[in-house]
Amino acid sequence: MTPSDPSAAKPVSSTSQTEAASGVNADPSSHKMMANAIRALSMDAVQAANSGHPGLPMGAADIATVLFSKFMKFDPRNPNWPDRDRFILSAGHGSMLVYSLLYLLGYEDMTIDEIKNFRQMGSKTAGHPEVYHTPGVETTTGPLGQGISNAVGMAMAERLMAARFGEDVVDHYTYVLASDGDLMEGISHEAISLAGHLKLRKLIVLFDDNGISIDGPIELAESGNMLDRFRAAGWEAMRIDGHNPEEIEAAIAKARESRAPTLIACRTTIGFGAPNKQGTAGVHGAPLGPDEIKLARKELGWPYEPFEVPSEVLDAWRCTGLRSARARVAWEERLAGLDAEARAEFERRMAGDLPKGLAKAINAFKKQISDEKPKLATRQSSQNVLGVINDAVPETIGGSADLTGSNNTRSKDMQAVTPDDFSGRFIHYGVREHGMAAAMNGMALHRGVIPYSGTFLVFTDYCRPSIRMSALMGERVIYVMTHDSIGLGEDGPTHQPIEHLASLRAMPNVHVFRPADSVETAECWQLALEAKTTPSIIALTRQGLPTVRTEHTDENLSARGAYELAAADGEAKVTFLATGSEVEIALDARALLQKEGIGARVVSMPCTDLFDQQSGEYKKQILGEGTVRVAIEAASGFGWERYTGPDGAFIGMNSFGASAPYKELYEHFGITAEKAAEAAKQRLG
Amino acid sequence: MTPSDPSAAKPVSSTSQTEAASGVNADPSSHKMMANAIRALSMDAVQAANSGHPGLPMGAADIATVLFSKFMKFDPRNPNWPDRDRFILSAGHGSMLVYSLLYLLGYEDMTIDEIKNFRQMGSKTAGHPEVYHTPGVETTTGPLGQGISNAVGMAMAERLMAARFGEDVVDHYTYVLASDGDLMEGISHEAISLAGHLKLRKLIVLFDDNGISIDGPIELAESGNMLDRFRAAGWEAMRIDGHNPEEIEAAIAKARESRAPTLIACRTTIGFGAPNKQGTAGVHGAPLGPDEIKLARKELGWPYEPFEVPSEVLDAWRCTGLRSARARVAWEERLAGLDAEARAEFERRMAGDLPKGLAKAINAFKKQISDEKPKLATRQSSQNVLGVINDAVPETIGGSADLTGSNNTRSKDMQAVTPDDFSGRFIHYGVREHGMAAAMNGMALHRGVIPYSGTFLVFTDYCRPSIRMSALMGERVIYVMTHDSIGLGEDGPTHQPIEHLASLRAMPNVHVFRPADSVETAECWQLALEAKTTPSIIALTRQGLPTVRTEHTDENLSARGAYELAAADGEAKVTFLATGSEVEIALDARALLQKEGIGARVVSMPCTDLFDQQSGEYKKQILGEGTVRVAIEAASGFGWERYTGPDGAFIGMNSFGASAPYKELYEHFGITAEKAAEAAKQRLG
Repeated sequence: MTPSDPSAAKPVSSTSQTEAASGVNADPSSHKMMANAIRALSMDAVQAANSGHPGLPMGAADIATVLFSKFMKFDPRNPNWPDRDRFILSAGHGSMLVYSLLYLLGYEDMTIDEIKNFRQMGSKTAGHPEVYHTPGVETTTGPLGQGISNAVGMAMAERLMAARFGEDVVDHYTYVLASDGDLMEGISHEAISLAGHLKLRKLIVLFDDNGISIDGPIELAESGNMLDRFRAAGWEAMRIDGHNPEEIEAAIAKARESRAPTLIACRTTIGFGAPNKQGTAGVHGAPLGPDEIKLARKELGWPYEPFEVPSEVLDAWRCTGLRSARARVAWEERLAGLDAEARAEFERRMAGDLPKGLAKAINAFKKQISDEKPKLATRQSSQNVLGVINDAVPETIGGSADLTGSNNTRSKDMQAVTPDDFSGRFIHYGVREHGMAAAMNGMALHRGVIPYSGTFLVFTDYCRPSIRMSALMGERVIYVMTHDSIGLGEDGPTHQPIEHLASLRAMPNVHVFRPADSVETAECWQLALEAKTTPSIIALTRQGLPTVRTEHTDENLSARGAYELAAADGEAKVTFLATGSEVEIALDARALLQKEGIGARVVSMPCTDLFDQQSGEYKKQILGEGTVRVAIEAASGFGWERYTGPDGAFIGMNSFGASAPYKELYEHFGITAEKAAEAAKQRLG
Repeated sequence: MTPSDPSAAKPVSSTSQTEAASGVNADPSSHKMMANAIRALSMDAVQAANSGHPGLPMGAADIATVLFSKFMKFDPRNPNWPDRDRFILSAGHGSMLVYSLLYLLGYEDMTIDEIKNFRQMGSKTAGHPEVYHTPGVETTTGPLGQGISNAVGMAMAERLMAARFGEDVVDHYTYVLASDGDLMEGISHEAISLAGHLKLRKLIVLFDDNGISIDGPIELAESGNMLDRFRAAGWEAMRIDGHNPEEIEAAIAKARESRAPTLIACRTTIGFGAPNKQGTAGVHGAPLGPDEIKLARKELGWPYEPFEVPSEVLDAWRCTGLRSARARVAWEERLAGLDAEARAEFERRMAGDLPKGLAKAINAFKKQISDEKPKLATRQSSQNVLGVINDAVPETIGGSADLTGSNNTRSKDMQAVTPDDFSGRFIHYGVREHGMAAAMNGMALHRGVIPYSGTFLVFTDYCRPSIRMSALMGERVIYVMTHDSIGLGEDGPTHQPIEHLASLRAMPNVHVFRPADSVETAECWQLALEAKTTPSIIALTRQGLPTVRTEHTDENLSARGAYELAAADGEAKVTFLATGSEVEIALDARALLQKEGIGARVVSMPCTDLFDQQSGEYKKQILGEGTVRVAIEAASGFGWERYTGPDGAFIGMNSFGASAPYKELYEHFGITAEKAAEAAKQRLG
């Protein structure tokens, strides 16, 4: 691949550019100047920061220029317009590509000063693109493979919303720019096989096929055939010259007509235009240096100062932005054509507001439970609550990673989505926990749906990078994680979570719920749905549990994270702190002590992170200052000192589990009312 | 697929079976009886436990019977014979397949009583196969995708050892039985593309292609072409009838001659022989029930009582075991043919004993550092230590997930392994963190090599399921995790670990090391190498750090997890606890207090889990009972109350990070000596 002839570069008027952009006979010189503007801004910004990745933006500039000038539907003045096309830079390290585009296209927040402040404190130009932080960025990327997998979720949400509101108001494409690294990650397999299965025809992946990774030529570690791989997953696939605008345009046009998702492998030269460094790993993640930048300016035919974009080129880009915005005006008219109710419903869902009536329905459910006092596994309770929720909240989209009957995430009358019919509300994600979680992030980012789905709690590990992205972005994604302790029994230590509750509680901005019975399960679900900017993990048991909340209250007692479930009879000497299935054990331990005349209370802690947010006074009161504190949780004790203090006790696990019926396991590991009572008495002296 | 004709079943003598097993003209009825023995034991055991997965062992019985009776090289009396073929049941839920095989083949520990005690407390027949717990089990499986990826590591270790000791003593196959679920998991993509790239021709995957997953027909969630997928990754691939012994035999024979790893997709009927339930999801994870078992006995032509295997059939299986053991005898002779030094070295490496001289070399390194006091990032220190280690310990195999220059895991003169030359010692794993970790588990399980490899600490999330398997199995796998805090700077929150140290410390049986300088880095590496049954995470900085251990001591001070680095001048009023890059800040904070006449000490805590194992007295002494305790770590404070107590302070992170130069980030988030000193003074009142 040789760089294009620098002598061919000449500025073009904005008028001719506008014409070119709307037709097929694009003036190549104007394309070249537009693409070079991306290259120049990118190399200059990385150089100024002395940090970053110039290689990708310089290599993919032609692809991005064709995509945005010929196809993308967006509006720089309304970055969140619902029916815009989505563009995902999965290879987030090439962030200067996006920032250059946003500046050139005229997104208001992206000024040239922001470009100059690339990777500096407080700038809009963070090291990797961050959604919400920078208008026009659709998802936070950087950890490889996440972006392409978010895009699968966005494309699913598009199909789901189109099935509900019609293609007049929901009809857009999802474009991804992905790198070798994205496609080497395992999550990419889960994402592309799910997308191929669901025939997400409006998903188009542009693979920046530059043959270079950080360690060097991709051949050091890879020798597969990418096109065949995608075809095996049910995709269309083609290969083009990623520096030839006509080929790029023809390929995208063809992909838009495909009946399947499409991979366009674009052969590019990483760092295109840097005469000595292009095509090498040296240009991947380090500034070019002043000398090479000087040479690149010459090579590219870009005689301008650092950060200078001549007005003709800027005008060409800005006109592209203005032209594209016309589509939004036409869409507004179509939206206005919907009947008032449908339009209000569409807008409610896109805004992420819950429908009225949920709280009332939840309270009715809670009251019924407190009356009937069933003994149920909380996973079953969750299914019952979901029956109520899915009636009241039509935008929920359930699913499971091939454990539907075990996770109990499919409520009655919930139809499965199929490749040809997206009117259903339940997704068979397959054994693809990571792809599922990332797709849920994409669905939440798209807006209009509230995704929840299940697997076993131990397999949060399999989707942990995406759970972290839910938390970092602040997406309302609800993880239904069943089989939440050694209480799952015979499946043994590979399936028994030990450290998972602690490891998830350590993550910022995640609600980790572990309800003790049906009532708490309903309360936790309500809190999860109401948490618009925080993902939730709902940890649920396989084994049956009694109803412990036998007196109904409309107040959501789980909302403060912990509350006194049983007061002491007489002066309180002991406080038992417990979550989920161990609340029953705590109540039994309390009874044992009370029988001996020792006043003991039980605190249920369905959500420690919500409890941590309470006032110091509330915390003191609930934790029972001055009492002996014994925490009980069938999991690692890591982190429990926060609540028990140095003199308290912890009854739980300090090793991996074992394979046996669950009651024997609780005995074996000493997680019993007797042990808890004994620990309290030892400390009372 | 129809079940075979039950009338064809008749017992055969052990003599004819022995003949059949050694030739190509196997008597089909004897194959059938041998396979039916697996089916009957499996359905009976699952029924007795009222828990487990009968579908896979019944469906894959023909495959396993052909593999073990015609090809596998093993010795039931020497389950750990080094040059045995490895058999990995990646679909660990079908554990009764392995237990049936081990019993039938005559592995001493696997009695019929163990089979009867399937999934009961203390039995050898745990819910999922567990290595070490059950002789003959090669790796712990259950979490899908791990087994096949371990197998890639085993096949790599075989090639590596063969390149070092010759094919006379190292020449064996690695066979995998994998399910749809294994191959849907993302890790399978990383594993198969790595295996294809490395041309692991002695790796053979038998895909139990039964078209059923827990949710139902696989078409609910999958429509890819598995053969094309493997071919795109550089594999040979073929499809056969998995109930036809001749086809199975021919396919395996062909695969053994291939120049690439081979996938054999075996069309099977899940639960083969259960007339009403076979071929459905109903037989996947639940007992058949007494009625269906009765019908299956009839269908299969197996008129025997539960757990009864007629002696002719048992003899046939036991003879297979005896026959295969002959290969070991021949191998012993070849091993004896090695010269004494090579043989001793082979045996030392297979036993996992470290060579003499390591401790001395490490101490010389430490002394030099204490003299020269360099300012280095600990990732650079690690590279320097690796220079010493890799000279002294020839069995280390380094690597990186495409971050070689950042992780600093490749020491001088370390040649990379290539598909055609395994004499090298460094693996370019590609951007495949999960596959890398699982392959390292496989290499460690194989024995003969000590694997270590790197990525960024934040990406422990990407390989967490395999880190957990390292811990659960107790494998000496060393994870070199650099860029261990906001100290990585501009890459921003997607790349800055916050909760990772806590989440790894919460996991049982993992050493989490975070050294403060070059000396501690050397000590932590030594501890990691010496921990034969515990994996290690070594968390290392991107940014430069001063040498804090300026006085040499031969004693490994990191071995107790924490130690007093700087005593107080005068009476100690304050104790600063810190790890890694924050030890420097603690020393500065101490200086600030001492300047004001407040006695303060600094405790360096390179490994909290080793510290947790010390005596109560040592812990009290180090933590400085009665002093105000301030912990400093640029990470989540989750878990630090264990050391600071309720009245202590924590200086660190309570949110995600940000993108900026690292010194600004430390200021921004208040992780400074001034803030630490201030927190101490506030508490002193």
